[in-house]
Order: sequence, then C-alpha cells, then structure tokens
Amino acid sequence: MYRSHSCGELNSSNINTEVTLAGWVQKTRDKGFMIWVDLRDRYGITQLIFDEERTPADVVEKAKTLGREFVIQVQGTVIERESKNPNIPTGEIEILVKELTVLNEAIVPPFTIEDETDGGEDIRMKYRYLDIRRNPVKNSLMFRHQVAMKVRNYLSEEGFIEVETPYLIKSTPEGARDFVVPSRMNEGQFYALPQSPQTFKQLLMVGGMDKYFQIVKCFRDEDLRADRQPEFTQIDCEMAFVEQEDILSIFEGLTRHLLKEIKGAEIGDFPRMTYDEAMKMYGNDKPDIRFGMKFGELNAVTQHKEFKVFNEAELVVGIAVPGGASYTRKEIDKLIDWVKRPQVGALGMVYVKCNEDGTYKSSVDKFYDQDDLAKWAEVTGAKPGDLICVLSGQTNKVRAQLSALRMELAERLGLRNPEEFAPLWVVDFPLLEWDEDTERYHAMHHPFTSPKPEDIPLLDTKPGDVRANAYDLVLNGNEIGGGSIRIHDKETQALMFDHLGFTPEEAKAQFGFLMDAFQYGAPPHGGIAFGFDRLVAILGGQETIRDFIAFPKNNSGRDVMIDAPATIDKEQLKELNIKLDL
Amino acid sequence: MYRSHSCGELNSSNINTEVTLAGWVQKTRDKGFMIWVDLRDRYGITQLIFDEERTPADVVEKAKTLGREFVIQVQGTVIERESKNPNIPTGEIEILVKELTVLNEAIVPPFTIEDETDGGEDIRMKYRYLDIRRNPVKNSLMFRHQVAMKVRNYLSEEGFIEVETPYLIKSTPEGARDFVVPSRMNEGQFYALPQSPQTFKQLLMVGGMDKYFQIVKCFRDEDLRADRQPEFTQIDCEMAFVEQEDILSIFEGLTRHLLKEIKGAEIGDFPRMTYDEAMKMYGNDKPDIRFGMKFGELNAVTQHKEFKVFNEAELVVGIAVPGGASYTRKEIDKLIDWVKRPQVGALGMVYVKCNEDGTYKSSVDKFYDQDDLAKWAEVTGAKPGDLICVLSGQTNKVRAQLSALRMELAERLGLRNPEEFAPLWVVDFPLLEWDEDTERYHAMHHPFTSPKPEDIPLLDTKPGDVRANAYDLVLNGNEIGGGSIRIHDKETQALMFDHLGFTPEEAKAQFGFLMDAFQYGAPPHGGIAFGFDRLVAILGGQETIRDFIAFPKNNSGRDVMIDAPATIDKEQLKELNIKLDL
Repeated sequence: MYRSHSCGELNSSNINTEVTLAGWVQKTRDKGFMIWVDLRDRYGITQLIFDEERTPADVVEKAKTLGREFVIQVQGTVIERESKNPNIPTGEIEILVKELTVLNEAIVPPFTIEDETDGGEDIRMKYRYLDIRRNPVKNSLMFRHQVAMKVRNYLSEEGFIEVETPYLIKSTPEGARDFVVPSRMNEGQFYALPQSPQTFKQLLMVGGMDKYFQIVKCFRDEDLRADRQPEFTQIDCEMAFVEQEDILSIFEGLTRHLLKEIKGAEIGDFPRMTYDEAMKMYGNDKPDIRFGMKFGELNAVTQHKEFKVFNEAELVVGIAVPGGASYTRKEIDKLIDWVKRPQVGALGMVYVKCNEDGTYKSSVDKFYDQDDLAKWAEVTGAKPGDLICVLSGQTNKVRAQLSALRMELAERLGLRNPEEFAPLWVVDFPLLEWDEDTERYHAMHHPFTSPKPEDIPLLDTKPGDVRANAYDLVLNGNEIGGGSIRIHDKETQALMFDHLGFTPEEAKAQFGFLMDAFQYGAPPHGGIAFGFDRLVAILGGQETIRDFIAFPKNNSGRDVMIDAPATIDKEQLKELNIKLDL
Repeated sequence: MYRSHSCGELNSSNINTEVTLAGWVQKTRDKGFMIWVDLRDRYGITQLIFDEERTPADVVEKAKTLGREFVIQVQGTVIERESKNPNIPTGEIEILVKELTVLNEAIVPPFTIEDETDGGEDIRMKYRYLDIRRNPVKNSLMFRHQVAMKVRNYLSEEGFIEVETPYLIKSTPEGARDFVVPSRMNEGQFYALPQSPQTFKQLLMVGGMDKYFQIVKCFRDEDLRADRQPEFTQIDCEMAFVEQEDILSIFEGLTRHLLKEIKGAEIGDFPRMTYDEAMKMYGNDKPDIRFGMKFGELNAVTQHKEFKVFNEAELVVGIAVPGGASYTRKEIDKLIDWVKRPQVGALGMVYVKCNEDGTYKSSVDKFYDQDDLAKWAEVTGAKPGDLICVLSGQTNKVRAQLSALRMELAERLGLRNPEEFAPLWVVDFPLLEWDEDTERYHAMHHPFTSPKPEDIPLLDTKPGDVRANAYDLVLNGNEIGGGSIRIHDKETQALMFDHLGFTPEEAKAQFGFLMDAFQYGAPPHGGIAFGFDRLVAILGGQETIRDFIAFPKNNSGRDVMIDAPATIDKEQLKELNIKLDL
C-alpha cells in the first residue's frame, strides 16, 4: 500500500502521528523558505508543508518541481496547522514532510480540477478521466453507487431475485430502433441489443420466478434528444400473481425508502391522478406538483363574446402566475415571445393582470368586461396580484404549450426546489395512441399491456378511449418509472394484436416465442421499469443525467474520449459477412 | 394480490386459517370422491384436497379438469394432513379447498417439471422458461443472486464504488475477436462490445476513483468451447495506490467471506504458488490442490539406461495413483487408451505397480531394475499399493497430458469433492508468451501488465523468462480470477509496446486515449477480474455454468428459445449503411 491514511481522514486527534499519504497535487504555494502543497485523493485534501528548517533540503528542492496533478507519495508527521481551515475535515492539521516520491509526473491538465472548473462541456467529455477527479462528478458517481446499493438491498429483502437477462437477443421491429450485432458464426444473421428485458422478464414470470428485478443496461438507436443516451440503465422489475395495486404499493415503498434513506424526506402516501386528470390540470402526463398553477379551462367563460380566436379554439385554457401582475409590459412581451418560439409553438398569448385593488386589466379588454375577467380568475384560481396567462387552440397542442409555460415560469419563480420531492402516480393511461404517420393505432406502452376489462368493448367503437392497466411514477415533473399489468391470456392477446393491425402470422413471427410460452401456463403478472440515470439525477438534485454517468456519449452517440464508434478492419467485416454500403 | 400465502410457508401452526394460494398444478391424484392437487410456486409445494363431502360439488368437478401446469387460485382452510410428509416444510398440512379459479390453462409441457426431468439439454434450452420452474435451475438462479448481493455488499463496505462503464465502445484488434455494432448515426463506423472494461477501469484509476468494482457483462466472439458463453459476467475490480500484496489481500478477503457466508467453509490464509511451481508440480497453471498426486520429474532417475523413449524426452514425469497397484491389466490398458485419445495426445504411458510387499512391477522391467523403480517411487511419493503413471516428451505437452490424466484419475477416485474448497493463488506469471502463428511474443495477460522490475533487463535477452506482477486465483482446479499490477508510467509502457512489436504509431492508434490519459498523472494501480458464472457454479458445487445462467446460448452462439440471431430487414441494413456479403 502506498499510503497509511487517505487525504480525507487526518485531524487533530492524529497530531504527532507518522503518516504516508499519496495523491495528486491540487496546488502549491511556494514562499521560498516554505512550500505548501494541497494533496488530493478521492477522500479529500490534506495540506503538506515543506519547511526549510525542518524538511531535508533535497526534499524541499524536489517539492519546488511539483506541478499540478503530479502523483506523489509523502512521509511525514501530522502537526497542528497555524491558520486552520474550518471548511474541510482535515483543516486543523498539516503534514510536515520528511520524504517525497514523485510517483508520476503530469502535463498541465486542459482545465482546472476544481468544483467550478474553467472547462466547457466538450473538453470535459474528451478528458472525462480528469473530469472525474472533480468533486461534482466524483460525488455524483459515488452517489449513484449508493442509490444502486439501496435499491438492490431493498428489493432483495422484499424477496426479489436479480436475474441477468441476455444482451445478445433478437431484433423486433416494434418500438424504437434496435442496435444490431452481426453474428460471425451464423452467417447473414444478427443479434439485437435489448431495448429492455421486457420479453425475458415476462418469460421469467412464466418460469415461476415471481419477483424479478435487474439493474440493467438498455439500448435504443434513436436520434438523440438532449439528455438522452443510446445506452441507459433501468431498474427493471416484474411480479407474478399481482394486480396493479400490488405493484404500486411495492414500488411506492421502494421510492419512499430511497427518499427517506438518501434525502431524509419523509413522504406519506403518494398522490394518484388519472392520465386524463393530469392532462386536464397540467397539460402533461408527468406533472410537477411541487407547485400549483393548475390549468383552468376557460371555454365556458370565454366563448360568449366576439373574440374569434377563442371562439374557434377547441380549448381555451389559462394559469395564474403568482405575483405576475407586477410584470412590466416589456416582461410580458418577452413571455409572449417565449411561447411563440418554435420549440413551444403558440401563436400568441392573452393575459390578464389581477390588480391588488380587485380590478382586472387584460390584453383583450376590447372583448371582455370586468365580470368576464373575474370569472377567468375564479376558474384559474388567480388572486389579486397574479397574472393570468391564457392560450388557445387545438387541445393537445395548447396543453403542451401551456405546460411548457407553466414549467418555465415555475423555474423563474424558484418553485422547482431540487431538495423538495413530490412523487405522484399517474394511472389509467390510454391503451392505444393514434399514429399520424401510419394512420393506425399503436400500443402506447407495448403490445402486452392489458386493457381495463370494462373498457374492452370500446376497442371496436372508440379505441382511443380504452384505458390500460398502465401507470407512471412521476417525481418532480419527471417520469422516473412506468409499467403495466400484462396480458396473460391468449384470447386478450389475440384481440390486442388484431387491433394493433398485426395479422396472426405477423404476431407469430415477432412474438411467437412469448406466445408459445404463454400456452404453458402464464400467471397474471405485471411490472415496472425505472429510468435509473434520471432517478439518480433527480435524487441528486440535478436536472441533467450526464454527470451521473461515468462515460456518457454526446448527442451524435459518440464517446469523444475513446473516439468511438470508429472504422473497423476489412478483415473484421469479411469475417462477419458484411460490407459497407455508403 | 392473488394469494395470502406462498406455497412454501404453511405448516401446522396455520391450521384452521383461511388462505388463498396461487400457483401451478404439479400433479393431481383423483380418487373419485377425493382429489389431491400438489400446488407449486417459487417457494414450495402445498397439497390441496377437494373432498366430495366438504368441497362444493362444482368445485370438485372443476378440479377434475385440471391438467399439469395449469395456473390456479384456490381459497380454503388449512387442515392437518392425514398422511404427513416429513420431507417438505408444508408436509403436515393440506388445504381443504372451497373455491377454485383457473387463472390460465396449460398445454402439456414437453418435459416433466421435476428435479430429475425427462427432458434433454436441447429441449430444456428451447423451453428454458419451463426449465426455470424446476428446482435445480430455479435454485441456481436464486443462488447466483445471493452470491452477487454478498459480493456487492462486501466490496461496498470495503469502500469500493460500482461504476457502470459503457457497452458501446471501440474495437481493438488485440485479444479475442470483438462483437461489433454498426453505428447508424456515424456512417461506416462501428462500436464494439467490451471484452472487459479494462481500459475504462484504468481510466477510472487515472480519475482518482481508487477502489472500483463492477459486476458486468463482457463479450467475446470466440468459437465456443464447451461451457463457454459469448456473453459472460465478470466481477471486475481495480485499485489505485496498491501493490500486488494489497490486491491479493483484499480479494482473498472477499473469497474467504463468500466461502464462509455461503458454504460455511472456514479457510485460513490461501496458499501461494508461482506459475513455475504450478507447472512443475501439477503441469497446470490452475491446479486442483484438493488432492495430491503431485508430479515427480524423473529425468535424473530414468535417463541412465537404454530406454530410448525416455532418454530422448525433454521431460519424463510421473504421478502416484493411490491404490492403483490393484488395477487389472485391462484397467491399465484402458488408462493407456485414455491418454492416447486425441484430446489428450500422449503416445503411450509407462506404469509401475508398487506392490504391497515393497516390490515393483513395471511395463519397462526390461530396462529398469527394482532399485531404479524404488527411486521413481521416491520421487513421485508412491507408497505400496500405488500405481506410478509416467509420461514423457516435450515439456509443455507432457505436462498438459499428465495433468489431464491426474484430473481424470482424481475424478474417478472421488477426490474432487464439490463441497470441499481449496483456493490457491498462482503468482509470477510470465509476462510474454510465444505465439507460433505470428512468430512473436504476445502479452500473456494484456499489454498493460507490469513486468517485475528486476526482470526488465531480461526483456532483451530472454523475453520468455520475464515474470509479470500477474496472479490468478484458483479454486478447485478452476481459474476463478486473474489480474495484474498495471504499468503506470510512460517509459515502461513504451518499452512493452516495443517488445510486443507495436510501432509507436500502432500503439498510438490502438491505445492512444489511454496513453494520453496516463500523461496527466496516472497513479500506481492494479486489479483483478473474477469469472462470475464460473465462481457461482463452483460455489454451487457444479462444474458447468449453464444452469447458473438464466438464458444461456448454445455452442453455436444461438439462443434456441427466442431463435436468435436472426435475419433483419433490408430497411434496417440500409439505415445502418451495410449490406450482406455472403
């Protein structure tokens, strides 16, 4: 061992102890007769002192040559520090160095190894191994480990078995695009990397392994939106002989446990909301309920006047912005510009200032009188001093737009406190969703999601209204988990395939092995999967996942550190029986 | 929840309790007026009784229709069983059924769901989900989970951080063949699946994450030998600021912990043996030391007579087989046939019977007298009653042959007790090995393995004699782990690349990012990786890994259950910019 102690553990109780430390040179201060070095390792920083009077001259000389990030080993004595630093655990002491070994030199790093670095995103990614030396990234990775351990221990104690499912599986055209892997031994054939272990976990249920989980990498070859990764980690879970209520209960327990153990947050029963309610009240199936600003639907109180924009709109809907009445005209114009950005896409915004004196001033005073506006305030819950923002148009679009505005305003108003946790179950998702491109219904979750039995008759008449036994767990406006009760009987499955436009032959070709398996006695079952990267980030008080992933890829799916993907040898291609087709 | 209790937990303390159970019909016995059903779930088997006098008639009727592996739910009362079964935990009770729901029917399974099944390997693999219902497979998977949890908790408590490294990385021609993944977004380029996270764990050391581990899938596109899988699981570990002794100590601790916690085996300090000693004494770098039969090298006591075969041999070596003197001529002939099989490849075998009366009878009495043979007995440690088996030839070959014979005889003699555990460190592996095909030296482990400093001068003169800071952990004749102290300085790394025949340009192209990283202050570091599948199998008392893997592939790398790999759409190929080249 190159050290007797870490750089994070020595304090005044160790004074006069002889120690050996090893680590990286964080910084040096050379006063000529005295040199201080901050020595850093994973555990902290300890100050070293090289002193002309007390340190051998050759050691002092060597200390003068140390550069940032040199790897060194020192031997010395723990002594009391003259000017103590109460901000770090080792701040009371320093090491009077007697011996110094340079274990490795270092060239100057391309950015500073500090909590607030001067390195931009791109350079930090290229030199991720240096970035990991910084506390924010190092602590995020250690935090991730702690969360994973707590998840595993909790589920294991609840009787769940972690089963490793295969990574080299079969491509299925349904869902997102697969990454594929040419098989050398099976000419012309390909494996696919799993988008999720969905079929395998269902097969494990058929196999009687009635409580399964796995923290597992999944892969999707999608065009990457911001903060998405082509490979990501899931907490994948499945149970047999359960109903929806059992799944919600168990995984609410897991989430509550994590919030308590990791954040000290005591959360009671998680609230629940149907998908329809969430869309109506928040315009979003993953509402952030840490704050209000619920939607007020205004059709009934807006469509009786001559304002054509509202009269022709499928939905007129508003929110009350706390304290917004004090916004200047310029500030409001900026808000209007914000909702008109292409990313949001509103055509405009109507607003009402709810003055402290109980009067209203709106951008549509021409059409609406004080009584009208009072009703709007009532519907949106606006109080004196608030600003009502109203959008209108096609229901789905306008909900998405107002939801974006609500989140933006909450952010600006500081209502999205990362240390406050507001979990929420969203239930009763639609079974099917209409796909404009293919002009048919698709499974909203996947083709094995079970419909609510009472809605099955609607499959023929109003497919879009059929609700599924499907649920999402939402935390602070992020979907952190989602799942469903699966179809376990042949008849319902056949019905579903039929409504999804699969011929029996197509269904057989794609899902044959699962359907075969179901013939041998499939138990009722269901499950859930958590996006682990996102869960960890949110628990860590962050909105972006990148610093919680050791070696993330950029938006082109590249690892800029190792420079992958890359071209491969002709020989390799030949062995795999493929050639490039550029 | 479909059940109030599992099928494994009810006993006489539950008598008169109303319960609901769910599970699979293991078997039914229909006596007409009374029907018994064994109901099975993951936790055990509970006997159900349907009784004309006490069970509603329609329920009895329905029970008569139950077939094997039907999934059912029953409600009833726990009653005392008339003929108790002391072999199972629920053997004192049965359930007097009042209600029966068939949750799912089942067609007849292709093999019996019993501990000793009538299904062969192929059919069990095709219907693996049914195979998993069987106790031997189910218990193996649950055992695997327990081992993984213990590994994680132990290492985590020792301060190790589990860091997930990427699966989509870069192909390196060194080592085994990579599986590759065409990148759609980066035309003509490919990711590779990791053969191990080797470079990433070294980068984590550069990043200061000084104790890393990961239980992780790795991939090698090799022609599959028996009991190898194209995807396999490793416990991958790395530490910084350590020397070989530290690594051995920590991971000996882990292994001892597992043996104690899982098998109740108390093991003291693990013995150590150099690679040279292992090869000399056991002809093998992973000797099974649960039993003796050490090699005795006989050159000195055999090459003074006229027996040309021995005189011309590089090595003459024998083992003493306990009690082998009683083998008949026919049995010995069979042994000789066994060593002459192409898989072993010996040209013949000389033997000496050590008679109980102290005399010797050998197959080469013509050349050697009793005094000669007494010396052979001394060298091989043969006692009266033993049989000395002697092989001769080229050193490496004959050692491998005699090692194979030693293992075979130990197996036949019942000396390989799966419930006995004999761990062993093999240290001081050669740094380089000669490759006949390319006629150059290859890194025996990988190009980052550090040479013993005192052997560096030999690199120029006798490269094959240079020892590495490399070690294997052997358990019961299986290599369960292996690792090395890495090179952390540029100069030694350059020297190694030079001796491995890499030009600086080639080294840069292949390992550039790692060499770049090392410039920024790489700490001394080293690590180890355990083959998790094998470790679990051995701890589970098995020699083959297949039942400890939920969904294994066959020797052609196929998953016969899901029928992967498979052809993919032309569209998919086009998007990936590749075409088949058959």
